[in-house]
Amino acid sequence: MDQLDLAEVHRFAARIAIEAGSYLRDQALARTQAGGASTALGDSIQIKENAADLVTKADMHSEHLISSAIRDRFPGHKIIGEESYSAGQEKRFLLDDDPTWIIDPLDGTVNFVHLFPTCCVSVGFCVNKKPVVGAIFAPILGGLHLTNASGSLYSAASGLGAWSTPISFPFSSSALSTPPADAPAYAKPAPWAHAVPLPYIPPQPLPADAPKGCLFTAEWGKARSDAPESNLTKKVNSFWNMAAEVGGRGGKGGMVHGVRSLGSAALDLVYVATGAVDVFWEGGCWEWDVCAGIVLIAEAGGRVVPSQPPSPAHLSDRSLPIPDADLGSRLYLAVRPCADTADESGREAQDRLVCEIWRRTELLDYKRPT
Amino acid sequence: MDQLDLAEVHRFAARIAIEAGSYLRDQALARTQAGGASTALGDSIQIKENAADLVTKADMHSEHLISSAIRDRFPGHKIIGEESYSAGQEKRFLLDDDPTWIIDPLDGTVNFVHLFPTCCVSVGFCVNKKPVVGAIFAPILGGLHLTNASGSLYSAASGLGAWSTPISFPFSSSALSTPPADAPAYAKPAPWAHAVPLPYIPPQPLPADAPKGCLFTAEWGKARSDAPESNLTKKVNSFWNMAAEVGGRGGKGGMVHGVRSLGSAALDLVYVATGAVDVFWEGGCWEWDVCAGIVLIAEAGGRVVPSQPPSPAHLSDRSLPIPDADLGSRLYLAVRPCADTADESGREAQDRLVCEIWRRTELLDYKRPT
Repeated sequence: MDQLDLAEVHRFAARIAIEAGSYLRDQALARTQAGGASTALGDSIQIKENAADLVTKADMHSEHLISSAIRDRFPGHKIIGEESYSAGQEKRFLLDDDPTWIIDPLDGTVNFVHLFPTCCVSVGFCVNKKPVVGAIFAPILGGLHLTNASGSLYSAASGLGAWSTPISFPFSSSALSTPPADAPAYAKPAPWAHAVPLPYIPPQPLPADAPKGCLFTAEWGKARSDAPESNLTKKVNSFWNMAAEVGGRGGKGGMVHGVRSLGSAALDLVYVATGAVDVFWEGGCWEWDVCAGIVLIAEAGGRVVPSQPPSPAHLSDRSLPIPDADLGSRLYLAVRPCADTADESGREAQDRLVCEIWRRTELLDYKRPT
Repeated sequence: MDQLDLAEVHRFAARIAIEAGSYLRDQALARTQAGGASTALGDSIQIKENAADLVTKADMHSEHLISSAIRDRFPGHKIIGEESYSAGQEKRFLLDDDPTWIIDPLDGTVNFVHLFPTCCVSVGFCVNKKPVVGAIFAPILGGLHLTNASGSLYSAASGLGAWSTPISFPFSSSALSTPPADAPAYAKPAPWAHAVPLPYIPPQPLPADAPKGCLFTAEWGKARSDAPESNLTKKVNSFWNMAAEVGGRGGKGGMVHGVRSLGSAALDLVYVATGAVDVFWEGGCWEWDVCAGIVLIAEAGGRVVPSQPPSPAHLSDRSLPIPDADLGSRLYLAVRPCADTADESGREAQDRLVCEIWRRTELLDYKRPT
């Protein structure tokens, strides 16, 4: 393990995320009027029991591309992939201390099926159960064009920073070569040309009355039961609390600046890392949805913690430390990097925001199948 | 009026939307770590009474750029702009039969302030109160990069089709010159190089059990009152109905494939025109939010109708015609292009979908100030 060069692993993760994303983009283009019928995807959409849970051959082939590249390059590494994992009945938490890749070959499958732009490939890498490298590539975010198009790469490695890079199609891996000598001098050296550091803007102070003024992302998800204690009911009530006027909803009104839902947890985490989104609160995610994004947020200076307080005392006793989220817990709350001020450190501001979210959101019930 | 060449007006609208968007992008970049402090925007953010209603100097300057260009090129045309209109107390519906530009210099202001990518410039043009040209440009959708970046242009003109075009920075208006002789032959001639027709994929049939399987966009908006009859309450209940399992919510459960919120009505309409979004339902929009998007959807084969039935009878009597939405009504429901099938025409499918949405959504109360 000591020999692992995280900069090299970062470059490799970025490359395979882009290559899988380029393949997905080709599949999407093939369905368009402009792209013609060169590659038919129409017959490959399989509908599982729940209409909100689609899986495509493209999804499985994307995982195959990524897994094959990993096995070639790092034959000793383990791989946990969304598609192969989901195909089995086994949903126990399988991660151990070995070097392990955790990949979502297509996050936002529903979006991809509809050609809605917020879908991506998410490639994460863990050592000792800790996410240390992540690469997320959104291949159709800029539109579906045969020419003059580009995709968005967001990537990070522990200690080496978090980065955003425009990627042109067709992709050449030389785009990920080391940066030119006259590259801008950021706080950390850019990993390759045209990479810009995240967060995009330097961390800002947290408003005194947060979550008022915050941009909040959340996802409706696939669980749609109407029962009073269902996750859908709890989610809607939580979103409603976050949106309502201050003083509303029995005092839980958060008056956030906006509520956004993109249909991709990986991209929600990306936008927390860029600083655009102040808060992402979600239950139901699997490891492959969040592994890469956790590295991005950690390197950008944000935090990913449990979506609900470890104990009721955490709501009132600010001296109790707030732990990082457990990978595999399925319950996540991410907050953006915050600047230090005269009154509180950035970390204290994040803790304050976490408590304000916990107060306004309901306890979700997402467990692992046993 | 007879002399107006809609192809030329289309090209002009696209150019000014891109130029204003390029300016907005520069302002956003200036706030980033990569862009440095070449243009400071930090001091220009004004907070109105409601924290969810921000306006920036960038917004006003964008409107100035657009209005100046219109006055130079079409000195006889009227202009209704979001910023200048909102600055006055007057909110009556001002549109008459004269050629009139209706512009939103920055749709998704909250997103822009946070550097969240779904913001855009929306430029619409009406004759005889009918929107006939529209151009929507999203300058930071692909990320905030100084180099190798591109933006997304979505535009349309009556009878000339709806189009998506990748735009590279820095923008040169020669990118909107007529297409090369070897340009692809679509059903309608492309207005310029690299433009691809909308919807991206040929219209698909509507599922028999729609809205199940549909991608639904909706916006939380700025009205956040917690009162039982408030627009927020009615919106949340409507979203909830759309999302819940079939049979849930007193039989109103729609089990849509996904619920998305982007924070920009103009981009919501764009994604209906691309075919990605099946349904957009919203109250509270002003003319400048929807004018350009209405042209895009009409040319793509979709429909924009009132968000609520003109009469209760419309819910049960399918023979009653469903009118187009009135520009200025503030209540809109947009549905995507649908293919004809053996059982129903595309138009009948759209009517069916409209009725299914009306049944599941509550009557909003957005009026014009008198």
